[in-house]
Amino acid sequence: MIKICLVGYGYWGPNLLRNFNALDNCKVTVVCDSRKERLDIVLKNYPDTIVTKKFDDAFQYDFDAVIVATPVYSHFEIAEKALKNGKHVLIEKPMASSLSQCEELISLAEKKGLSLMVDHTFLYTGAVRKIKELLSSDFIGKIRYIDSTRINLGLFQPDINVLWDLGPHDISIVNYITNTKPLAVNAIGVSHTNNGIENIAYLNLFFENNVIAHFHCSWSSPVKIRKFLIGGDKKMIVWDDMEPTEKVKVYDTGYEHKSDEDKRRILVDYRTGDIYVPKVSATEALSLMAKDFIKSITDKIKPVSNAENGLLVVKILEAADKSIKNKGKEILL
Amino acid sequence: MIKICLVGYGYWGPNLLRNFNALDNCKVTVVCDSRKERLDIVLKNYPDTIVTKKFDDAFQYDFDAVIVATPVYSHFEIAEKALKNGKHVLIEKPMASSLSQCEELISLAEKKGLSLMVDHTFLYTGAVRKIKELLSSDFIGKIRYIDSTRINLGLFQPDINVLWDLGPHDISIVNYITNTKPLAVNAIGVSHTNNGIENIAYLNLFFENNVIAHFHCSWSSPVKIRKFLIGGDKKMIVWDDMEPTEKVKVYDTGYEHKSDEDKRRILVDYRTGDIYVPKVSATEALSLMAKDFIKSITDKIKPVSNAENGLLVVKILEAADKSIKNKGKEILL
Amino acid sequence: MIKICLVGYGYWGPNLLRNFNALDNCKVTVVCDSRKERLDIVLKNYPDTIVTKKFDDAFQYDFDAVIVATPVYSHFEIAEKALKNGKHVLIEKPMASSLSQCEELISLAEKKGLSLMVDHTFLYTGAVRKIKELLSSDFIGKIRYIDSTRINLGLFQPDINVLWDLGPHDISIVNYITNTKPLAVNAIGVSHTNNGIENIAYLNLFFENNVIAHFHCSWSSPVKIRKFLIGGDKKMIVWDDMEPTEKVKVYDTGYEHKSDEDKRRILVDYRTGDIYVPKVSATEALSLMAKDFIKSITDKIKPVSNAENGLLVVKILEAADKSIKNKGKEILL
Amino acid sequence: MIKICLVGYGYWGPNLLRNFNALDNCKVTVVCDSRKERLDIVLKNYPDTIVTKKFDDAFQYDFDAVIVATPVYSHFEIAEKALKNGKHVLIEKPMASSLSQCEELISLAEKKGLSLMVDHTFLYTGAVRKIKELLSSDFIGKIRYIDSTRINLGLFQPDINVLWDLGPHDISIVNYITNTKPLAVNAIGVSHTNNGIENIAYLNLFFENNVIAHFHCSWSSPVKIRKFLIGGDKKMIVWDDMEPTEKVKVYDTGYEHKSDEDKRRILVDYRTGDIYVPKVSATEALSLMAKDFIKSITDKIKPVSNAENGLLVVKILEAADKSIKNKGKEILL
Repeated sequence: MIKICLVGYGYWGPNLLRNFNALDNCKVTVVCDSRKERLDIVLKNYPDTIVTKKFDDAFQYDFDAVIVATPVYSHFEIAEKALKNGKHVLIEKPMASSLSQCEELISLAEKKGLSLMVDHTFLYTGAVRKIKELLSSDFIGKIRYIDSTRINLGLFQPDINVLWDLGPHDISIVNYITNTKPLAVNAIGVSHTNNGIENIAYLNLFFENNVIAHFHCSWSSPVKIRKFLIGGDKKMIVWDDMEPTEKVKVYDTGYEHKSDEDKRRILVDYRTGDIYVPKVSATEALSLMAKDFIKSITDKIKPVSNAENGLLVVKILEAADKSIKNKGKEILL
Repeated sequence: MIKICLVGYGYWGPNLLRNFNALDNCKVTVVCDSRKERLDIVLKNYPDTIVTKKFDDAFQYDFDAVIVATPVYSHFEIAEKALKNGKHVLIEKPMASSLSQCEELISLAEKKGLSLMVDHTFLYTGAVRKIKELLSSDFIGKIRYIDSTRINLGLFQPDINVLWDLGPHDISIVNYITNTKPLAVNAIGVSHTNNGIENIAYLNLFFENNVIAHFHCSWSSPVKIRKFLIGGDKKMIVWDDMEPTEKVKVYDTGYEHKSDEDKRRILVDYRTGDIYVPKVSATEALSLMAKDFIKSITDKIKPVSNAENGLLVVKILEAADKSIKNKGKEILL
Repeated sequence: MIKICLVGYGYWGPNLLRNFNALDNCKVTVVCDSRKERLDIVLKNYPDTIVTKKFDDAFQYDFDAVIVATPVYSHFEIAEKALKNGKHVLIEKPMASSLSQCEELISLAEKKGLSLMVDHTFLYTGAVRKIKELLSSDFIGKIRYIDSTRINLGLFQPDINVLWDLGPHDISIVNYITNTKPLAVNAIGVSHTNNGIENIAYLNLFFENNVIAHFHCSWSSPVKIRKFLIGGDKKMIVWDDMEPTEKVKVYDTGYEHKSDEDKRRILVDYRTGDIYVPKVSATEALSLMAKDFIKSITDKIKPVSNAENGLLVVKILEAADKSIKNKGKEILL
Repeated sequence: MIKICLVGYGYWGPNLLRNFNALDNCKVTVVCDSRKERLDIVLKNYPDTIVTKKFDDAFQYDFDAVIVATPVYSHFEIAEKALKNGKHVLIEKPMASSLSQCEELISLAEKKGLSLMVDHTFLYTGAVRKIKELLSSDFIGKIRYIDSTRINLGLFQPDINVLWDLGPHDISIVNYITNTKPLAVNAIGVSHTNNGIENIAYLNLFFENNVIAHFHCSWSSPVKIRKFLIGGDKKMIVWDDMEPTEKVKVYDTGYEHKSDEDKRRILVDYRTGDIYVPKVSATEALSLMAKDFIKSITDKIKPVSNAENGLLVVKILEAADKSIKNKGKEILL
């Protein structure tokens, strides 16, 4: 039985609590949150939970692992303290506020032989697992481009911009499904508030062979759009996460080069054909993520949503910020 | 009766011929195309039309105006010859291959007192006219951002990239509805063919006051998307041109700033409310464009889709090309 | 504090338990279910609940009201026993297996001065409340027709046909929003199983003045459709419950009669105009239903989803069954 | 070269003229319409066409076949005259005003050895041809039900009700794809105008083995819906004709019967799986229909949209009218 201390009981906390408690071999024994009214809600639903206002006070109780579900700026301090005290750590995305913090946490976890994982929940959705499966064979061919739109009417965050808020979803997915590191980053962002925090941003990742990934993140769209395009040599995938059932569609469409006698021109025609809509598992992603974390502790197996992916996400976000400040200048990774 | 010589009878030619011939005070008397099989099609449907393989041969016949519907690289030569011979000119978008060509044509037309117009047909659609009308009052408030996605599976053009092919639609619309000039441009493009012509491109226009317009143009999307977002201070507009009837939606959603006692933070909340879907005229845009061109000749009135807009489109495209070659560097206009 | 005994802890039970327990002035103190494994789930989440396998054993404990959430055939027996023991009663839809059972329960509740309510949850959704509001003014005009499609891939019920399963939603809504009783019923149904229970059915209700309501209910559709049309004299409403946000649309479209000099003909033209998409409340319907039941007890107020509506639903279903057996014969109500 | 006389140049006439003239081995030489302004439009576009106001006057000119594109009530008289004069005949749907008229025309055509065809254009669409192909193998299994919704805001016809106007599309498709005759008909219709002509109607066709086809036709819907469901034993098809590209979807969903030890119950579970969206030909259906008519003359081959289907459509419509007048009474065919 893995005992867990959950730090931070805000928007995502109740989902974490419910999913970890639903597992057979794990129980959330301690919950920390500075706000008394949040702790009261915990007690109402789970009366036998220990609650503390300060994380430091938690260590007098018994637990094996810590879940960090606090604002980003506090991730490093809490995770470091947990690791130093010999606890396994799961951190909500993004992993930390800077690349150096991520490197330090990874190094610390390795030294201590502890699990360190980042909760990029999307990697456990039926859609992403199906896409990963499709890409692992030669069915789709080589990826030529990725384009993602993740926009909605969102509460402006006071401490992080829209890229740090929404971008980790897409970046971690691209890291996972391409399994390669981008060479460079370029980004544009605008802020429509006095605090200068960007509420709309466009991010490009450049890979070898002219492969590009483009992300549109916005808190200022009147409509919610979640559209992810993957262009392969042989087929193309459209993942629309707003679709209730037909989320992933595979188009029998690809690039086909024809050489022409006229050497000045290279014409490209398209094939178009049938569409295939694979059934996608509806199992709650968070429950699979929770299982994967516990398994990473019990079986010492690297989880799908591992710290290396979490670090790469932060590395890209840091470069994106730098590019935004430099009017879209390309930043090498 | 305005007599017209149509130069180029390719994909768009039949539409032009049909719409101009449908007007009361105008007739296409001459059609030029180097391909005999295209001229045969003209004669089959309009037996009394004069056809010539060379534009030069057309001048022996009687006409007042020339429509240039040939590939972009030939626009300047044909339009210049027409103007020099005292003919009014309508050019298909984009106006010409370079800013200097556009300037020269405008200057020539002014000197000769002739109409010079660019066919940005979209400006005459019910959707754009409705959006222009909505923006002309204070209903929407000040524009904060524009975002357009215009992607599909397209035939790769051998002489122009996807921005020069699809971009003129969006850029001319933004020029028209904002009625202001952008300060700078930045663009990213990739080519998946041997000829190096970009088939996917992302373009940003920067205006005063952190206003941004972003365009995604692609010939490589398995699905056709035409989505145009306008974020206003008071309301936001979504124009989905793939919708058969409900093309333009106005969302009662806007920015609302709240100052907080805590001076370090400026929180922004959203209002959300009803949606209004105005009826949009279904009159064929091309017929209104044709009328506007004829009226610009007969009444000496500047048309909606005027040469200044056409020039600004080319200026932006030229800057975008430069930015693409410089890895997304910002180019001042 | 109203104490509740919940009878039946199947598919809907957990939702009822959660919503009633969330109210301030009410608590589910006893849960009855013949299956031990269902009672265990109750105890895991709400350890202080009393559980019994038999409803009869519940009466030794303290409660004021009974919620009947068992299969339809047992509704009457449980509700009757509850009322006779002086308990208020909430019954899941449909109210009972026959019109006479409904009449007996209503008569019993009146005699005892107890609340008797049927859970037609849909009456408390934001969409239905908005539609009721729109219809209460003269905005929509007189209703001319209603058409509802409620189809999906459903588990075939062993004891009731698809009309008794899905029909109560639509019928109770029509009863509520029209506030008039239909004059006659006609229905067609087919069974694709050996047990003869209809899995596809079409039901028509006939009102005065040629007003018609048509329902299509099916367990055998590969796609889930929830589409409800209301044709008014002045405007028309489309409620698409599968839409995540734009559920209710009001079309500025209506009937407009023109008399013609030619007396043999009466031509009817349509006006079409703007569309209005009102914001619809997202409050969970079940929580409002729960509140309404408690209020009906504490304030002795007739609830929105009252027993009269529940009775009319069963009356119509009974007539529909009769019509199905008689090949669509019209049955007067 | 087959020469054609087109009778009636209303809404559909220009499409017929364009498509027949586009064929190599056929030409519309004569057009008849009582309205001079319609004939003027013909002459403007096809100056060498002979036009007459009366059909009788056409016989002095040379033609082989007649297309009847007039209001329904005149179909029989024109077609009969044409056949008696030795002309092949194509009639717009529905074939005639009564079953007996259809029988007489078929008998006359057989006696004279002439082609007689009804224009049910939908049979030539890519969607219907793909559905027919899918059904011809055992891929879908046996059809268990068909359900079609064909509703929109339509101009009320003064001489025929909505079933005679919209119903022939669906009925002819069902005749074609099932290739069996229904046993009985039942229908409900309402009229919201003074002339008593139904503007909303629901039609059921009953086949052997509890197979049912249901049609919803309406001129009074604020939204245009074209949705056609086919439930097969093995798979189900949804054809949404409003979809621009993904018109036909095949769902890996079917009926699966499980016998239970409990003999009173037969439970039915559903399989659900992938979806397959076959590419559907975009060739204009009318051009294929035109070709089929000419081929029926030149090669003496029975066309896809033959007179037998046309007759069955009218037989069903006649029975539906009778059922409507008898409050939904089942009418045996």
